[in-house]
Amino acid sequence: MHFTSETHLVDDVVERDFVVGDIPGTLWMPATTSPPVPLILLGHPGGLEQMYPRLAARARRAVADGFAAATIETPGGGDRPTSIAAEQARADLRRALQAGREVSADIVDRLVLPLVEQSVPEWQMAMDRLLALPDIDGPVGYSGGVISVGVRLARTEPRIGAAVLFAGSFIPRAILDEARRVTIPLHVLLQWDDEHNDRQAALDLFDAFGSTEKSLHANMGGHTGVPAYAGEDAAGFFVRHLS
Amino acid sequence: MHFTSETHLVDDVVERDFVVGDIPGTLWMPATTSPPVPLILLGHPGGLEQMYPRLAARARRAVADGFAAATIETPGGGDRPTSIAAEQARADLRRALQAGREVSADIVDRLVLPLVEQSVPEWQMAMDRLLALPDIDGPVGYSGGVISVGVRLARTEPRIGAAVLFAGSFIPRAILDEARRVTIPLHVLLQWDDEHNDRQAALDLFDAFGSTEKSLHANMGGHTGVPAYAGEDAAGFFVRHLS
Repeated sequence: MHFTSETHLVDDVVERDFVVGDIPGTLWMPATTSPPVPLILLGHPGGLEQMYPRLAARARRAVADGFAAATIETPGGGDRPTSIAAEQARADLRRALQAGREVSADIVDRLVLPLVEQSVPEWQMAMDRLLALPDIDGPVGYSGGVISVGVRLARTEPRIGAAVLFAGSFIPRAILDEARRVTIPLHVLLQWDDEHNDRQAALDLFDAFGSTEKSLHANMGGHTGVPAYAGEDAAGFFVRHLS
Repeated sequence: MHFTSETHLVDDVVERDFVVGDIPGTLWMPATTSPPVPLILLGHPGGLEQMYPRLAARARRAVADGFAAATIETPGGGDRPTSIAAEQARADLRRALQAGREVSADIVDRLVLPLVEQSVPEWQMAMDRLLALPDIDGPVGYSGGVISVGVRLARTEPRIGAAVLFAGSFIPRAILDEARRVTIPLHVLLQWDDEHNDRQAALDLFDAFGSTEKSLHANMGGHTGVPAYAGEDAAGFFVRHLS
């Protein structure tokens, strides 16, 4: 892992771009840290550049609460290569949506499962390197979509102590089954009036989680209109579980 | 309205019992108020004495946030008379539950609608008197079950500016229809694993509300196990809308 740039933002946040393996990422830290701070991983659907304003806002909130925050580019996002199979699945999805057909379980599996298989080890590698930095220590939180990536990380990665999951993407049957074995505290955000979201699938996933502490926060405002107070509540969740 | 007792609680809260008409109630106020404070009405399923610990905890939180809080006894609760029709509906409900039968729409209507018809004018009368006190001014929030009472108040009483509604009781079809005409900000609490609660009915009601700002917070912990952080989030909602 090597750092490629460092910017001091106005509010005592240091933003550093890095490359881990061949994956670009960004780390946000408090300007001064003593003792080391817990880490929140910021998941997203891909495209660090377009996602920057929203990721930076989430990161600055995390830093204000005493955390480090980091993200890496999604497989196929930004300049990262995409596979022919992923292109094919995305084309099939587009065709189904344009034709008003239901998106088949087969398309969902081909779209999401390879992404989960590739993303999770990448997050784990990033975590290895980030936790080796002197100013960062566990526990680690995962925040965001892709929700299936969050489910797999929550189930398999013992360093993840709590997760804020954003409902809104297609959920393979296998991930729904995995959810039953997730036991960490969860805070699930659902945009109730998100027309691109399968609300029932999100409710079924929430119901499936095996965690004794899980909360579902459903709000209005469409796909990208998560209200500010929803961010406040999610921030409070991480403070309760990671601080 | 006349006050029958006054107690100074430890945390700068003054608790005063009152009678309005022939209905007993309790008012909690900050020990010092200047200027006048907004009011939160605490709804409950009936039985002020048994409900006291939970009501007082909610009231003290409201007072800490700069509000007055008040409750009145529910029709048929405590020493208040109950009607033969209400007794009959409750007996029919018990029989249906014991037999494992679905509770019919007719039973739900007979159980809930007369309670709504009687409760709402009682809350309005209490509101008239409480808002006439020098230390209390609008807006008014409604917090609690019976959720159908909350829906009717939210739809018909313009002094109610925001409501925290507790899902968990039976909802008549007519109330579901009324919900579409509710437009005030709403914060709905649902205990996801409440075995006595019709979860789908609660989700349908949440979906029906016409409010552009509505949030559903679903948590674990069973019927009476609303977690402390859920109370925090609900308190934050009232601070945003009534302060």
